[in-house]
Amino acid sequence: MYLYSNIVGTFVFSQNFQIREKILFNEKQLLEFAGKLSAGEVIETEKPFLEKFKNIEDLRQGKNQKALDAIAKELLGYTQKMYENNLLVTKASVSLSVTDDLLIIQVSSSVDELAKSINLLSKRLREWFSYSLPEVEDRITDHKKFAEICLSDRKQLVQEFHVQHGMGRDLQKKDSIAIQNLARTILELFRQKEEAERYLEDLMARVCPNMTAVAGALIGAKLITIGGSLRNLVVMPSSTIQLLGAEKALFKHMLNKKNVRPPKHGEIINHPLVSSAPREERGRRARALADKILLAVKVDYFKGQFIGDRLRKELEAKFA
Amino acid sequence: MYLYSNIVGTFVFSQNFQIREKILFNEKQLLEFAGKLSAGEVIETEKPFLEKFKNIEDLRQGKNQKALDAIAKELLGYTQKMYENNLLVTKASVSLSVTDDLLIIQVSSSVDELAKSINLLSKRLREWFSYSLPEVEDRITDHKKFAEICLSDRKQLVQEFHVQHGMGRDLQKKDSIAIQNLARTILELFRQKEEAERYLEDLMARVCPNMTAVAGALIGAKLITIGGSLRNLVVMPSSTIQLLGAEKALFKHMLNKKNVRPPKHGEIINHPLVSSAPREERGRRARALADKILLAVKVDYFKGQFIGDRLRKELEAKFA
Repeated sequence: MYLYSNIVGTFVFSQNFQIREKILFNEKQLLEFAGKLSAGEVIETEKPFLEKFKNIEDLRQGKNQKALDAIAKELLGYTQKMYENNLLVTKASVSLSVTDDLLIIQVSSSVDELAKSINLLSKRLREWFSYSLPEVEDRITDHKKFAEICLSDRKQLVQEFHVQHGMGRDLQKKDSIAIQNLARTILELFRQKEEAERYLEDLMARVCPNMTAVAGALIGAKLITIGGSLRNLVVMPSSTIQLLGAEKALFKHMLNKKNVRPPKHGEIINHPLVSSAPREERGRRARALADKILLAVKVDYFKGQFIGDRLRKELEAKFA
Repeated sequence: MYLYSNIVGTFVFSQNFQIREKILFNEKQLLEFAGKLSAGEVIETEKPFLEKFKNIEDLRQGKNQKALDAIAKELLGYTQKMYENNLLVTKASVSLSVTDDLLIIQVSSSVDELAKSINLLSKRLREWFSYSLPEVEDRITDHKKFAEICLSDRKQLVQEFHVQHGMGRDLQKKDSIAIQNLARTILELFRQKEEAERYLEDLMARVCPNMTAVAGALIGAKLITIGGSLRNLVVMPSSTIQLLGAEKALFKHMLNKKNVRPPKHGEIINHPLVSSAPREERGRRARALADKILLAVKVDYFKGQFIGDRLRKELEAKFA
């Protein structure tokens, strides 16, 4: 007799390859074992047979090609079921592949794209509002503050910025309202960006607490985004992590070694420990920081204990 | 005696070039006459003198260079006042140069940039939401509808789109909220874009009713934006108007005459009379449309009567 398991269930075949007994997976079992099915372990539906037939020598079907062919022929009746179960398992494993680090990538990219939209629309707002009060635009460089100012009363602004005889035109109410609507939209985008950033910080603390402690939520998220996943970061050398985000400068150096020096840091230049350092010190600091980040990423990926604070303190002590 | 007017006011000089009488502009007069000052017309402050001294022959100062030099020397005391008034007048004329067609350019560009932001963020939303229900993304191509769907309850969507065993992951509430926030932001941008378009239509009907009747508000606004101002359009040949917006294709043709055919239409391809025509007909229609648009633009610029409806009907009759 032969014991044979596949995605449909487990079958016991007689010596002349007729199905003698069978247990089919139900949907719940199938989804539970979706990940394990092909690993050759004892699976749910095999257990009862293994107990019942434990004396039979070749219960577990061997490498006998002839036997396999005959069994396959006998199982043809289950083709439809096999297709359905396969689809179910594949879908389930696609679903399981949506890991939290993919969410981090989406949020981090979304924050970037909100910032891009804010810039685009703010440039427009500045040009447009300058028809009304050109003297103000120069003096307020912050986009958010500028959008807020656009919502203020013109007379009050004229007073505040001392532009009694300004070069602007006192627009009709209808025309001013259109400008204010754009300013309001920009402020709404700012609000949404801040909220997304807060959520990103939560998500980072939940998914990679160690990396967050060492690199900070925003830089960490950026590294995961550039790397493509947490798993990709784990298998990188720390020198690659050090340069993530500086690909352009790196390739420029590789194409033209003599004239272009290699970059010393990518995204992690924004880390306070690197950006606050004197220029000649930054390369060394970036290298040390990348080492610690890689260590933290590994701990996060393999769900180790929280050692992020210790790692950060070691770094700070080193550069004190 | 001499009569001499400049930006400060009007002066009467004696035979030996001493100021005998003067009237200085007040601020209100100055701003009112800002545009006329240099035209050699009789200006506000001259009137009283012209009446009082009407018998004096050379009251209006002639081309006598020696006399002019002496008068200029005498007026040196008014340098500061001259500077101040000049500044005031210059600022006023900058302010007057903010014409309504400049507003049209700002609104039209702002609509474009809102559309760009919507696209950028919608692509992100689609990728992000696909973690939850990948089966839905394909089937809804409209960005606005898709954003609305992202706000619906997941269970309901699973029912509606028949994806009971889907490839998506049922995200935690916190994670779903972040996606919904992005969807809401996109819908807000849509709302703002629609409002800006309505305002643009109003503005076009107010500033260039004829052009709007012939070309439509959005295409008209686009032509003004590419042209730079209504005035620029007025002095263009109609063949240029026909190609506005097809600069890239035109230059490609000019650089490589043999292989690249010249474009037949720019922005006006979007006009229903052109876009609805069979391909071989479009060039001819674009040319006729550009002719009429130019005519309409001229009428608008020189504040002529409304003939837009007649022009459009002529076009429609021609292509009926």
